[in-house]
Amino acid sequence: MTQADTIFKEFKEHSVAEFFKKNRQMLGYSGKIRSLTTIVHEYVTNALDACEEHGVLPEITVKVEQLGNDHYRVTVTDNGPGIPQSHIGKVFAQMLSGTKFHRFIQQRGQQGIGASGCTMYAQITTGKPIHVITSTGKGKVYEANVMIDVKKNSPLVTDEKEYDGDFTGTTVIGEFKDVQYQQSDKSPGEYVRRTALANPHAKITFIDPNKLKTVYERAVTVLPKKGVAAKPHPKGLEIDDLIEYAHHSKERTIKTFLVNTFDRMSAAKAKEIEELTSIDFQRKPDSISWKDAEEIVDAIKKTQFLAPSTAELRPIGESTIERSFLNVLEPEFHSIRTRKPAVYRGGVPFQVEVGMAYGGKAGRGNENGSTAEILRFANRAPLLFDGGGCAITKAVNSIDWKRYQLRNIETLPLSIFVNICSTYVPYTGAGKQAISDEDEVMKDLGLALMEVARDIKSYVTSERRKYEKHTKKLTLTKYIPEISRAVSELTGAKKEVLEANLLRIVNDKYENGGDEEAEEEAGEEQ
Amino acid sequence: MTQADTIFKEFKEHSVAEFFKKNRQMLGYSGKIRSLTTIVHEYVTNALDACEEHGVLPEITVKVEQLGNDHYRVTVTDNGPGIPQSHIGKVFAQMLSGTKFHRFIQQRGQQGIGASGCTMYAQITTGKPIHVITSTGKGKVYEANVMIDVKKNSPLVTDEKEYDGDFTGTTVIGEFKDVQYQQSDKSPGEYVRRTALANPHAKITFIDPNKLKTVYERAVTVLPKKGVAAKPHPKGLEIDDLIEYAHHSKERTIKTFLVNTFDRMSAAKAKEIEELTSIDFQRKPDSISWKDAEEIVDAIKKTQFLAPSTAELRPIGESTIERSFLNVLEPEFHSIRTRKPAVYRGGVPFQVEVGMAYGGKAGRGNENGSTAEILRFANRAPLLFDGGGCAITKAVNSIDWKRYQLRNIETLPLSIFVNICSTYVPYTGAGKQAISDEDEVMKDLGLALMEVARDIKSYVTSERRKYEKHTKKLTLTKYIPEISRAVSELTGAKKEVLEANLLRIVNDKYENGGDEEAEEEAGEEQ
Repeated sequence: MTQADTIFKEFKEHSVAEFFKKNRQMLGYSGKIRSLTTIVHEYVTNALDACEEHGVLPEITVKVEQLGNDHYRVTVTDNGPGIPQSHIGKVFAQMLSGTKFHRFIQQRGQQGIGASGCTMYAQITTGKPIHVITSTGKGKVYEANVMIDVKKNSPLVTDEKEYDGDFTGTTVIGEFKDVQYQQSDKSPGEYVRRTALANPHAKITFIDPNKLKTVYERAVTVLPKKGVAAKPHPKGLEIDDLIEYAHHSKERTIKTFLVNTFDRMSAAKAKEIEELTSIDFQRKPDSISWKDAEEIVDAIKKTQFLAPSTAELRPIGESTIERSFLNVLEPEFHSIRTRKPAVYRGGVPFQVEVGMAYGGKAGRGNENGSTAEILRFANRAPLLFDGGGCAITKAVNSIDWKRYQLRNIETLPLSIFVNICSTYVPYTGAGKQAISDEDEVMKDLGLALMEVARDIKSYVTSERRKYEKHTKKLTLTKYIPEISRAVSELTGAKKEVLEANLLRIVNDKYENGGDEEAEEEAGEEQ
Repeated sequence: MTQADTIFKEFKEHSVAEFFKKNRQMLGYSGKIRSLTTIVHEYVTNALDACEEHGVLPEITVKVEQLGNDHYRVTVTDNGPGIPQSHIGKVFAQMLSGTKFHRFIQQRGQQGIGASGCTMYAQITTGKPIHVITSTGKGKVYEANVMIDVKKNSPLVTDEKEYDGDFTGTTVIGEFKDVQYQQSDKSPGEYVRRTALANPHAKITFIDPNKLKTVYERAVTVLPKKGVAAKPHPKGLEIDDLIEYAHHSKERTIKTFLVNTFDRMSAAKAKEIEELTSIDFQRKPDSISWKDAEEIVDAIKKTQFLAPSTAELRPIGESTIERSFLNVLEPEFHSIRTRKPAVYRGGVPFQVEVGMAYGGKAGRGNENGSTAEILRFANRAPLLFDGGGCAITKAVNSIDWKRYQLRNIETLPLSIFVNICSTYVPYTGAGKQAISDEDEVMKDLGLALMEVARDIKSYVTSERRKYEKHTKKLTLTKYIPEISRAVSELTGAKKEVLEANLLRIVNDKYENGGDEEAEEEAGEEQ
């Protein structure tokens, strides 16, 4: 037996659940505080996605109860579509399964890992299953306990119950140890506050471990338009994708397969591609070999296509963000931009929204006054951790704020709100807390931030001018009695008349317009 | 049919390979430059691990050839144990399989993802398989092309050949597009340089796309002691681990199962635990229920154990790092500390090594002089990316360098070398470029850095003192002729004698010791 044979006796295969159990930090389970927020994050994003796919205005309750030292219960209830009994196990205890991963559709969840990760964390810290109560609205309620068989990455469903009931929605209850609730900008409470800010169409109730209840009421009552699955764009296509699509296609020819499978692929385009290759496009799609696929992908690279359709993107929208700002931040001034959709990696559409709110409840208050805060969102889901490695933070830090009269930005009462929406957000890790700095995303972020910063600059500058005028006026007004007395003595004019006239002149100049500055200012304030 | 039924029609299961294909940035495939370095990293770490497990001094050749625009071929050859024919496919094209993931053993690789990730990247960018040539030393050589069936996460092996040949080792050849070679501190060349620095027992040859060949010769000829798999420590045990171990155990009683499965578990300790529970330890281990397991884990928490055995840790060692520094950095001064082993998360042993090299080729040279560089390593494998989120960078930044007379540290010719070794490194992501800031790891890093910084302070201070003395001496010497002349005129003593005597006094004071400062200095320089 060779050395290699001895070594390879140890060769084994592992499940993705084993991998994430051992590397739980990759899913956000590192540290007690972060772990609790991760759990709330996973359940809340699933709840919102479910409600929106169901087509109802979300009504979500999040409850965190303390059961002991570093020991909590989390309960999340939604009014979504419910889960068919046959799928309860897989939804909560099979990683990489779900309705989201394989579709190009803009949702918060996209991996099919999160909820199963919570089940795993409950299980390894307390040994207990999570409990699910759900109804799809057919008059039946299902309850079950769910655990995960980590070795097999498959669900273990026990204590199933079925009884009559008339609602649609899901409640999930989990018990966790090695977690801790703390008031901070990384707590479940802050997570819910930011969720409310980016989802003003949702009513969210949060009950903290001290039984303190916060209700975020809806600021708008219109549901975001429904997510639509997009066809893949040819420019993002890779050779083995093409083979996979082709071999699963029911089309009769390569030509109709291309036209019906891909975005922006007209019959004329398919013909253009055919002419660039040596392949007969009347062949069946499942006859495409690796070499054929390579030829087709090469030909696609040489062909011009319309940019990907971006109809499936669902930005929050400037007016909705404004409603949300007024509802939650009550700022003195704000500016918001939703940029046009763009594309990264050749084929994935995305869209950037940036808002800044200044004054009022904007910024993060502390004992020394307020400091600026960056509110990061991906498809409306707040990102609280790993800010340093995130494209959004990098873009904010790359702005030369002094150019915008915003010196020491960190000391300003400023909230910088950034939402990136995409049919597939390029997260840096499975914990989904930071966005990879793809070139195209960085460019759009930079442009949006600069546009908004210019507005803030105008406001801050005009506020400063107002203040300076106010000070000048006060100073001048202070000297009016003395000047009037002196002029009266010199000229014999009546002191009271002089005083009244001088006061009127000062007021005219500094309050009712009439000078260049004031006009400019008025223009800016519209 | 309810809304839920419609939605759940789209429910699907996915393979881990599909996940990492879509999220390739999590494996390090983001950006052309990083992608190429990731490939070299995966192959080189596997080669080094294989050689060490085989018990031979590694001799590795890395060749990067440019084939076209953003199109390269990477070839890595090692003198390791080779791969049995039956395993070639799984090693290179099945994620989460391998010899490393399930053992507590200190190696560079630990996930069983890296090499399959390279195969996937070759396939999606060029449509081509990777090519493997290997022999386990039985007179037969195997060659094969390997691709990965992404949907199933399983290998596709073609073009197998078998012929006579007399060597032991493996060569892997892959062709990649969407990669780029650039000279920088993140290039494959720099990766190999740092690998050589932390692995002075390896001979590594690097051939860059311009055919420039760099050979890093061995600085030591002793192989690091062989990695040994450790038993798990009870303090790191979780309930479902315990059940898994118990249900796979062949022991006859819970007691012998505990004693033989876990580190630091004596018969007396097992008895102590038995007494804290209501469980009969004469029962069979596979009878342990969730409730029993919970009781046992609770009892373990209440019991004192010796700290985990750290015999399986394999630090580089102070004298070996020194050899390596002298070989590669040729510094003016250096200081190195290998700290005692410690433990994180209750059960995982780790050990921190810190070295600083000052002057010579230390630091990173550029047109404006040199700047400090942080050389991060995990189990001797260099970490080039994601520095911002890494425990090592955070620890370096947390040091108040001014306290160590090292103002503007970034402008100094300083290399800060940090290696963390562990039987399981807590990486922040599957791309393994940053280490999670576990409390215990941060603490040890901070202490080691401070110890070494104190030495550097002494050197820098004594160098400064030497310089100041030298300047004083020069100044004094300059005035000796004038003083001698004046004294000679005043006293009639002979000018030449006076001069000679004064010179001797100055020399005595500033060169041959005799004052407090000099003694102190001598002490520091030993």
